[in-house]
Amino acid sequence: MTGFVWLVGAGPGDPELLTVRAARLIAGADVVVHDALVGDGVIALVNPTAQIIDVGKRPGAGVPQEETNALLVTLATVGGQIVRLKGGDPFVFGRGGEEAAALLDAGVPFEVVPGITSAVAAPVAAGVPVTHRGVSAAVTVVTGHRRLGEPDVDFRSLARVGGTIVILMGVTERGTIAAELMAGGLPPDTPVAATQSATTPDEVTRRCRLDELAGLDIASPAVIVIGAVAALDLRSRDRSG
Amino acid sequence: MTGFVWLVGAGPGDPELLTVRAARLIAGADVVVHDALVGDGVIALVNPTAQIIDVGKRPGAGVPQEETNALLVTLATVGGQIVRLKGGDPFVFGRGGEEAAALLDAGVPFEVVPGITSAVAAPVAAGVPVTHRGVSAAVTVVTGHRRLGEPDVDFRSLARVGGTIVILMGVTERGTIAAELMAGGLPPDTPVAATQSATTPDEVTRRCRLDELAGLDIASPAVIVIGAVAALDLRSRDRSG
Repeated sequence: MTGFVWLVGAGPGDPELLTVRAARLIAGADVVVHDALVGDGVIALVNPTAQIIDVGKRPGAGVPQEETNALLVTLATVGGQIVRLKGGDPFVFGRGGEEAAALLDAGVPFEVVPGITSAVAAPVAAGVPVTHRGVSAAVTVVTGHRRLGEPDVDFRSLARVGGTIVILMGVTERGTIAAELMAGGLPPDTPVAATQSATTPDEVTRRCRLDELAGLDIASPAVIVIGAVAALDLRSRDRSG
Repeated sequence: MTGFVWLVGAGPGDPELLTVRAARLIAGADVVVHDALVGDGVIALVNPTAQIIDVGKRPGAGVPQEETNALLVTLATVGGQIVRLKGGDPFVFGRGGEEAAALLDAGVPFEVVPGITSAVAAPVAAGVPVTHRGVSAAVTVVTGHRRLGEPDVDFRSLARVGGTIVILMGVTERGTIAAELMAGGLPPDTPVAATQSATTPDEVTRRCRLDELAGLDIASPAVIVIGAVAALDLRSRDRSG
């Protein structure tokens, strides 16, 4: 066993939001294994002599997780520096824990490199501080995409926590989630800011009330922020720095 | 008004966990204004000709927030590229929202650059995936440090959400928070992993049960992870990649 696997967060899309370590590892990798959510600009930084494997997990398609786990172990047996690039952060809805567990079980040396999750980057892009003095002192990140066997999130209790709620992969279930949060006590006029394709040239943010979220014109991938902070728009009118 | 202010997340401490954009801005800044939580290794990357201003907010000391806001506006009036470096991410308990609002009010052009929050980096360093298939499908980040006028977080409701809880700046209040979470229904044997000085040479992780958290030997700055995922330790035994 001579290979080494780096489980690397590729951030939200903009290559400049890679970490310095991620950029260095990508440039030096022998093999790069990546998801659908990793931006083209990031893939463009891969060494031209490296092998690139796309295991993109789009809804209803892509390589099953177990096959990706096995692929990483096999690649490590061959050797070299293997960079497993995941959109956002590997441990924030990235399923990096499953890959790390498989590598640990197989005795493959590895390291996890954190990345900027879109749960952080998208609100920044929208000018929404997920925590803000006097407004919010907690932020919960949940996914709207339910998998079989996934533990339930109690959205009615979440409505009573009193902080900001950030939903990833929630476009399809946004109506159901909004209804649960209102059933838990969140007012229908709670502000919502939804950002599509954050940090990419296609970025767009739309705002509405919680009781309008079901009908909001927004497409995947999107990050939905729910809470009083979503009424804020702390973006400079002059961004020509 | 000729200056431009960059509100930049400096990440958890390790300079390699800066974003590529942050590293570029730090190297090119005319003035750097930084907090106590920004690592020495990051400050070492500042251009030697740049002015460095420490407004470190240690408990009970440091420059008041309002003075920092005013300082940024004044510096922008003088001109140049002003980099406001904040530990972690500016909008995740970084009070970046207050600075952005002050700059917006004053008509100072600015941009916010996200960073890796220790709420993400510390669990990665501890081998704890904050979300994990079949174990946790939500993560809430809260601060244990209460300020006057801060909105309350309902820890009893939080106990019923069913996800992972990450506490920043919670060393002092860890006993109170653990008691509230148990009162809300979290079992006394809920796993806890607390990481001190994550991603720095002083990093250490200690584990315990929730009912042992009050007595855990841990010092600030620390990140406390509470939930079933904290029982996991997905770190490679061979990290010599």
